Formats: sequence, structure tokens, C-alpha cells
Amino acid sequence: MSNRVHNFCAGPCTLPLPVLQEAQREFVDYHGEGMSLIEMSHRAKAYDEVHKQAMSLALEVFGVPDDFGVMFIQGGATLQFAMVPLNFLSGDQRAGYVNSGSWGKGAIADAQPHGDIYVAWDGKDSNYTRMPKSDEVKTQPGSQYLHVTSNETIGGIRMVEWPAVEIPLIADMSSDYMSRKIPWDRFDLVYGGAQKNLGPAGMAIVFVRKSALENTNRNLARYLRYDVHLEKDSLFNTPPVFTIYMVGKVLQWMKDKGGLFVIEKEAAEKAGILYDSIDNSEGYYSSPVDPACRSHMNVVFRLPSEELENKFLQQAEDENLVNLKGHRSVGGCRASIYNALPVESVQTLSAFMQEFKNANS
Amino acid sequence: MSNRVHNFCAGPCTLPLPVLQEAQREFVDYHGEGMSLIEMSHRAKAYDEVHKQAMSLALEVFGVPDDFGVMFIQGGATLQFAMVPLNFLSGDQRAGYVNSGSWGKGAIADAQPHGDIYVAWDGKDSNYTRMPKSDEVKTQPGSQYLHVTSNETIGGIRMVEWPAVEIPLIADMSSDYMSRKIPWDRFDLVYGGAQKNLGPAGMAIVFVRKSALENTNRNLARYLRYDVHLEKDSLFNTPPVFTIYMVGKVLQWMKDKGGLFVIEKEAAEKAGILYDSIDNSEGYYSSPVDPACRSHMNVVFRLPSEELENKFLQQAEDENLVNLKGHRSVGGCRASIYNALPVESVQTLSAFMQEFKNANS
Repeated sequence: MSNRVHNFCAGPCTLPLPVLQEAQREFVDYHGEGMSLIEMSHRAKAYDEVHKQAMSLALEVFGVPDDFGVMFIQGGATLQFAMVPLNFLSGDQRAGYVNSGSWGKGAIADAQPHGDIYVAWDGKDSNYTRMPKSDEVKTQPGSQYLHVTSNETIGGIRMVEWPAVEIPLIADMSSDYMSRKIPWDRFDLVYGGAQKNLGPAGMAIVFVRKSALENTNRNLARYLRYDVHLEKDSLFNTPPVFTIYMVGKVLQWMKDKGGLFVIEKEAAEKAGILYDSIDNSEGYYSSPVDPACRSHMNVVFRLPSEELENKFLQQAEDENLVNLKGHRSVGGCRASIYNALPVESVQTLSAFMQEFKNANS
Repeated sequence: MSNRVHNFCAGPCTLPLPVLQEAQREFVDYHGEGMSLIEMSHRAKAYDEVHKQAMSLALEVFGVPDDFGVMFIQGGATLQFAMVPLNFLSGDQRAGYVNSGSWGKGAIADAQPHGDIYVAWDGKDSNYTRMPKSDEVKTQPGSQYLHVTSNETIGGIRMVEWPAVEIPLIADMSSDYMSRKIPWDRFDLVYGGAQKNLGPAGMAIVFVRKSALENTNRNLARYLRYDVHLEKDSLFNTPPVFTIYMVGKVLQWMKDKGGLFVIEKEAAEKAGILYDSIDNSEGYYSSPVDPACRSHMNVVFRLPSEELENKFLQQAEDENLVNLKGHRSVGGCRASIYNALPVESVQTLSAFMQEFKNANS
């Protein structure tokens, strides 16, 4: 594909080209079955293999321990904002939330109708430019869990230290999912939308400590119950077949690349190239973010003026460097550099930043 | 595609071959954008056109009046089982449900945790072989709505007459969605999964009378609120981009074919061919279903013995007539003949039924 762009979109976003090409080849007639995979019963043998393979790769690639299960649930991370309190809080039970930015705020807003929710750390005072240190998060007695957002896509910050609290953590990892190892013993549930690091939009991937579901709320419609999805291997109802199929292929691509260790290292390298470009620009490019909390997935930066930012974005697009505009709520520039974005795209952007600075300062 | 099978799957199921081929062609590089549609921001111009087009076609093809809106919501009809009572019943408000078979039962089970639910007609006495007549459904005072299932996929029955009640109807139309005209003035909400008549699995399409949302329950996480999805044109969170894109293409295919009038006529013709094959078989093939309620989508039939049924299914498969096994809960045979199944597939099955009978009676 000669005209393929460097795609820095914040999600949905770049997927591995070999995965797209393979999916294209087998799209109309899946493995000689005489039909497309998306025309097949979700109970068919050919689909069942796809489903089981995606599940087992998700557990394997992310290094998930045996006492956890994995679920594919439609509705993205946003439906998880509802399902977490609906399942884990009964009556007026309480949970703490870290408010680290746009997504933390969203999780809190959606939990509030379904439990006694309090903010255990608030990034408001620092204008959401940093994450809490591990000892800054204060939970209240009787809390069932502490909810954190591991990476704020819009703010461009990542949680480097996990909060040192006595209760289980529940994490929304949508925007740095499977790009870093995590200490599983601290978590009861980890979730994220597929559409950044793992595949097309259309579902969340949810890992849960099986024993944590023993006492969850059952007085819910079945689609909203984790225990139902887990027990039925995410086949309680018709699953999002195509999304699962694509996620399976992306996971296989990650595994073939060397797995999480290599992915995590490459993420740090890619981010390092761009933060170096910012730090070595003598202030031409600036990062509003606490250096200790810089995201490895979403690199936000500013230029000396909005006018220059607009010129930068336009010229970048002319060079096939696309989707670099910051989120409309904060402005500026943002390069999202998810797992499937090649290091060459980051190098090309870095070179362009240097050239643009030379020509416009 | 020379080896394409006749696919009688109950869902996911056959999609129009030209739609699959077009999607395949534009899969890796969408319209020269240098990326796949599934790698694109859901706020991108190219995707926005796809999204708006699918919405407007859904309203147009189904003949939906102006005072209704359409929503694309992940989770299939199963999540709608939850969202209907969560939105339309506050506190201990009441709603009636028609129990017409497996899917009616599912809707009831999922509504019960979220409201005061009663069965307004029960098909149990007739072993779910028929739907209620319009005057058989009895609602109770104070009911907010009556929920019906327009077609039971497993039982093979369709609601021919809509219940004559004073309250608004809410219908799960998953398995005969957009295959028949409906009297919109009787409905407040109509929903169904995409994966039978309309596209790949991954979402429900929900039509709602806008004024019916004025007093719905707002004390819910946002993903569970119809008013949020409607107000945000189903872009409140990242939508299931690929499913919406495919549904748009299938709707365009339906429109090009002549629209709902032609689709409805063809559905009756296809069903007629198979019911004639059953009725003219001198009892070799039999239908367990009340003739007045025979489904136009799922034709269930039995042979003289289970042994012959197994032989029939095996030989059919050898002739590329696949997925004719009845649902595991009822046994027998079932031909699902959704919108995209060509009439030639039905004629081929009919001829095979005749041949099989001649050779095995």
C-alpha cells in the first residue's frame, strides 16, 4: 500500500498492516467455508476456534495469572463504567475513585448513580498534569475497591506508581492496554476498550479475579452481570464476532513480535524519541505534563502559538503525518503512538518537528 | 465465489454477496484515505459520512416517521432487555410482557430485576406454537408499556396481529427486523440485533418515539440511557464502526432492491415455497406451528423420525445446504431465510426436500 499514512489517531487507530491484509484476504470466504466469518453462527466450529484462540492469547500475552478469567463485553469501556459499580456495589456500599482527568471523571460520573462514590485523589489542583504518587491516594473505611485510570488519553499522563491502598484496585486501562506489565496481585478487575491497542471498536476486554465475583450483585439483567459472561465464556449472547476475530489477530501479531516485554520496551522507545524532540527544542515545543508522569501512548505538546500549531498540523498532514490535533477540550498537538504504530512513523514525526522548528523560529 | 454455500443459519447469517465483496475491496485502504475505516477516528469526516448515511437509511428503509429517532447501541438485543425497563420503569412501575417463547422469556427474565413485570399473555399452554390474537393480551392498570417479540427465532412463529391494548408497545424485532411494515403509531420503541437481517453482530438498532424519552429514568450511567444516545447521535462513546458501516451497506442494498415493500413480498414468497413443500409432502414433513402464525424468517419442520432428520441434515450439507439443524432446545430442522438469502437458495432447498422424500419414504 503505497499511500499508507502515519496515523497518530487517539483511537480508533492504526492496526498492524499485515493483520489488515490477512483479514481482507479471508473476508468473503473464510478458510474455504463458503461464507464470511461474519455470516457464521457463533456456535460454529470455525468461529469457536477464533473465539477460544482470542481468549487464550489475551491471557497469555498480558501475562494474566490462572486465577483470573477474561471476558469480551460489548459497549466499550463506557459500559464498564456502569458495570463495575453495578456488580461490585450492593445497596449503599462505597468505592473510591481517582480523578486523574477526562476519563477518570467519566468513570466517576457513571458510577455515582449506582453506589456511594467518593474521590480518593483529585488531579484538579494540578490541572490534571500529573498522576498521584502511590501514598497520596486516601481511601475511606468500608470501600469495596479503588478505581484508577492507568493512562489519560487527553491529558497525556500515565500512572507510573499504583496507589498503595489496602483494598483491591480496579483499572480502566483503555489507552495503554497491554503495553505494560502490571502487578496482578493488586487488581480485582482490569478493563479497556479494544479500539486503541487491540483492534477495531466494539467491545471491552475485561480481566477479572474469579474469586472476586463470588459476592457480586446478581439482581441485574444478565448482560450486566460479570458472572454470567465469565461462566458462558462470553457466549451468553451473540458476541461481536468480527471485533473478536481482529483482536485475536492483533494479539497473535503481538506475540510474534516478542510479547509484552518487547511491546513495553518499544513503547518507551517511541515515547522517548518524541519527548527528546520536545526537550531538545529549546522550548519551541513544550509539554504541559509532569515529566514523571508522561504517557507512553499519548504525547501532548504545544508550539509557541496557536497560529504555529495550525500551520504545524497542516504541514504535517501534507507529509502524511495525520491526526496530530490535540483533543478539542485542551487544544495543542497530540501524537498517539499505540502498539501498532511503527517506530518509523515516530522517527518521521521527530524529523518533521525538527524541520518545522528550523523553518519557523 | 464458486463454492458459496446456501446458508440457512439462524444468525449471524447470510449477508448480500455484493456487500461483502465491496467491503473486502475497500478494507485496507478506505476510499484512498491511506488507512482502513476501522483505523479512523469516529470523529473523522469519512467516518461521519458512513455513520450519518447508515442512520438516515435505517429511518428511510423502515419507513420510520419523523417523530422517531434511531440509535446504534452495542450489546445486541440482550442489552436492550435491560435498557428498556431501566429507562421506562422508575421505582416500582409496572410493565406487561408477552411470553411467546425463548426470546420473550429472556426479555422477561432480564426485566424482572428492574421493575414490576407481569406476563400479559403466555404461550406456555400451546407449547409456544402460536402467538396471541390481538384481543387475547390482557394488560394491568398502571402499566407503562407492553413488550412483545415480533418473531420467535427458535419456535418459528411470528406475531401477525399486534395486541389491541391502550398502552404503547415496545417490540423486540431482532429476527424479522426490517422485513415487514409495522404500524408505528402503536409503538414507543422498537429494537433488534443487527446480526440477522442487517449486518454483522455487534449492536442493536433502536427506534424510539422522541417524546417517549421525556420522562425516562436519568439516574443511570450514561451508556444505559436512551436520551444520551439519542442526543449524541450514537456518538456519545466510540461506536462499533465496522458494524455500522456494514449495516449501512446492507440498507443501501435493501433500498436498491426496491425497499421494504419488495423485501416483505419476497420474504412471504420464500416462506411460501418452503411451507408449500411441507404442506404438499403428505405428512412426510410436518410443521409444529399454528399455520396462522408461521414465521416468514424461520421455517421449522420435522421429518418422520430423528434418524431421518439426521440423514436429511447430512445429505443437505453434502449439497451445500448448510445450518438447517433446529435449535438444540427443540430439535428437528429449521431453515432461516433472512432478507439476504437468495430465493434460489430456497428453491434449491425445496427441490432437495422433494428428492429426499422420494428417496426415503
